[in-house]
Amino acid sequence: MKNQINLLPEDIPTKWYNVLTDIPQPFPPPKDPEGGPSRIEALPKLLIGECLKQESSTERWIDIPEALIELYLRAGRPRPLFRAKALEDALQTPAKLYYKGEFFSPTGSHKVNTALAQAYYAGQEGYERLTTETGAGQWGTALAYAASLLGLKCTIFWVRAVYNWKTSRRNFMKLLGAEVYPSPSDQTDVGRALISKNPHHPGSLGIAISEGLEDSQKDPKATYCLGSVLNHVLLHQTIIGLETKRQFEKIGTYPDIMVSCLGGGSNFGGFILPFVPDVVKGGKKLRFIAAQSKAAPNLQGEYRYDFADHAELTPMLKMYTLGHTAEMEPIKGDGLRYHGCSPIISYLRHLGFIETVAYPSDEKHVFERARLFIQTEGYLPAPESAYSIACAIDEALKCKEKGEAKVIAFNISGHGFMDMLGYQEVLKM
Amino acid sequence: MKNQINLLPEDIPTKWYNVLTDIPQPFPPPKDPEGGPSRIEALPKLLIGECLKQESSTERWIDIPEALIELYLRAGRPRPLFRAKALEDALQTPAKLYYKGEFFSPTGSHKVNTALAQAYYAGQEGYERLTTETGAGQWGTALAYAASLLGLKCTIFWVRAVYNWKTSRRNFMKLLGAEVYPSPSDQTDVGRALISKNPHHPGSLGIAISEGLEDSQKDPKATYCLGSVLNHVLLHQTIIGLETKRQFEKIGTYPDIMVSCLGGGSNFGGFILPFVPDVVKGGKKLRFIAAQSKAAPNLQGEYRYDFADHAELTPMLKMYTLGHTAEMEPIKGDGLRYHGCSPIISYLRHLGFIETVAYPSDEKHVFERARLFIQTEGYLPAPESAYSIACAIDEALKCKEKGEAKVIAFNISGHGFMDMLGYQEVLKM
Repeated sequence: MKNQINLLPEDIPTKWYNVLTDIPQPFPPPKDPEGGPSRIEALPKLLIGECLKQESSTERWIDIPEALIELYLRAGRPRPLFRAKALEDALQTPAKLYYKGEFFSPTGSHKVNTALAQAYYAGQEGYERLTTETGAGQWGTALAYAASLLGLKCTIFWVRAVYNWKTSRRNFMKLLGAEVYPSPSDQTDVGRALISKNPHHPGSLGIAISEGLEDSQKDPKATYCLGSVLNHVLLHQTIIGLETKRQFEKIGTYPDIMVSCLGGGSNFGGFILPFVPDVVKGGKKLRFIAAQSKAAPNLQGEYRYDFADHAELTPMLKMYTLGHTAEMEPIKGDGLRYHGCSPIISYLRHLGFIETVAYPSDEKHVFERARLFIQTEGYLPAPESAYSIACAIDEALKCKEKGEAKVIAFNISGHGFMDMLGYQEVLKM
Repeated sequence: MKNQINLLPEDIPTKWYNVLTDIPQPFPPPKDPEGGPSRIEALPKLLIGECLKQESSTERWIDIPEALIELYLRAGRPRPLFRAKALEDALQTPAKLYYKGEFFSPTGSHKVNTALAQAYYAGQEGYERLTTETGAGQWGTALAYAASLLGLKCTIFWVRAVYNWKTSRRNFMKLLGAEVYPSPSDQTDVGRALISKNPHHPGSLGIAISEGLEDSQKDPKATYCLGSVLNHVLLHQTIIGLETKRQFEKIGTYPDIMVSCLGGGSNFGGFILPFVPDVVKGGKKLRFIAAQSKAAPNLQGEYRYDFADHAELTPMLKMYTLGHTAEMEPIKGDGLRYHGCSPIISYLRHLGFIETVAYPSDEKHVFERARLFIQTEGYLPAPESAYSIACAIDEALKCKEKGEAKVIAFNISGHGFMDMLGYQEVLKM
């Protein structure tokens, strides 16, 4: 038994999986708020045409364009699935642990999977510039990367509290040719209004989204890209789970538990969605667990219609939410700090298919678990991915108590090479 | 034609290639200096037994132990070979460019290939602690990683001038459980003597080697590991070139030019050695070019016997050298800053098989070339690897001038996620 399972470049999945065709209907559609202009009618001006089409597609399998497959290959896909034998031994658990290596990514995370798709379609549709927001910085880097590879310009509004200290990542985005602004910025009405009240406003993902949207709306050559939450983003990310499924098939194994961290839901969704029909329709007993922070336990919020952004520029989405103006305390796993969860994952949770755990916001438990993973498996996870690891280890220890040899699969959505300050501060190094 | 060529984990090479069996003899052996104790007789106390055996092995193919193959797989091998089509297009060159992706490494570089081997053999031989030196930090991180995976302790002497500013990498080593000291340190006689003269001594690789050697000599449970220069290190690194060769065979291509950066010679040797017999014995017209810095152009030095370390604790090796006490100005590609070149590569150069180019020590040319690579291919190279890229691009532009469609292969030995300060300072970001 080899401890790494991989596919050849020539065996990369060539279609994304659209889970909307396999879940009980009706799936709650976006809706407009009462009063004000229609956000839904404005969508074609905001989003890339093909992405908007995919948002409500009724096709089960959606072809990945040949040129985009080449871009996925260039980004190093397919990525390995590893058996965490050394971690199992350290835990003395009968559980079998497997992790997907999304950290082998040009920019450091799984975000490239949808960044490349969105940039590709944007280029096809004649756009010359992409605008977006970023929190932890992984999404911004991924979009800067995709834009650069496809010859597009890129403008990034980055939550100021994070922008200020992530110098290396900021310079990486700039090396990739992107324009990067701390948000709230002086580039938009939304930003200027907030800055005038507080020049040192720390920003939030919701505010940065509003800035990215406003910027693209004012420029016909620009389009807005979102790195999580929306259906088409999760669709693009299914490449993760599709590969993982083939990798498990290759070794004749099937997981009992799938775990990943969850902020907006893109890596979690990408990882689990291809397995969902086996549970929803096939009756498989597979548990899906989302690892969150108590700083933003959106899956433990209310299931209701809410905006995706602070300035209420987006349509309302039915989701588990803490409220789109909720204040959330800072954590090092900043990518998990978002008020709402993707409508698809929210709906699956509403139907009872998704479990969730929220870890204390001092993050000690999570970073200590990550340290054990680093010392046994040797990979340095992003702070967000440390939550996947913590949850997988916690489940493996439950297996140990019960003497159960369950198969636990977890996704390591990114690496931590540019986020060492998080380790340093939380672990007091 | 796919732009990524890879192998399955089950197709990983299972033997290293020993070039000593295929080059004209006699290959100059190590020798003792005149006067003083015999360094050669001391070697069995200094080096891992199996490594010392491999140092002068007469076997062409050396089995990689099964457990070590599992470790290579865990580290994500085999690694992709990429066709740099986007870079070719940007350069408008008829040349075909391919790069090996050693940056997909748990610690960031190719150094894990020999670190895992050395830690594995050390454990087999009953050692409990590994000591070493590091310059840029890539080797120290790799050995810390290997020691952690194999349950060994690890002590690292890190050139102080680099130790002081690479906080992230230092914390990564510590997360991996290693003890890390700035060198010269207060832990050894060599170190204390230098500190007493200058408490802020910036250190050098030669001094750090001396400290690592002294530390291991005083502890029977400890052994010393070297990350470059020696024959067995290059042997372990041939996994790079062996994979690359199979990848080229897979697409029915063979390189005309192979390029990599060179400090001590481990990534360069690992990349080219499996191709050397085709040239030396088979008459193939394949050029090998080593990319260096004018701060340490050791291949342009003298070919003579010299020590590998500052304190003259090692045997004398026949190599191209600048002198083992030479002062070399600081550069961001610190891993290239070493006074001598591996005896194997030096001998091949002496025989006329290795070309070399040395880039100005302001590194502007090199980092600008790296920027072009980043914006086209999307990967962030280590400062050292930027030299490979610069040289490959320079050769591709010569092909453009001459209208030659040569195949140029280059190795990207590591990523730059932890070395962004180099980009920031050289490119004035």
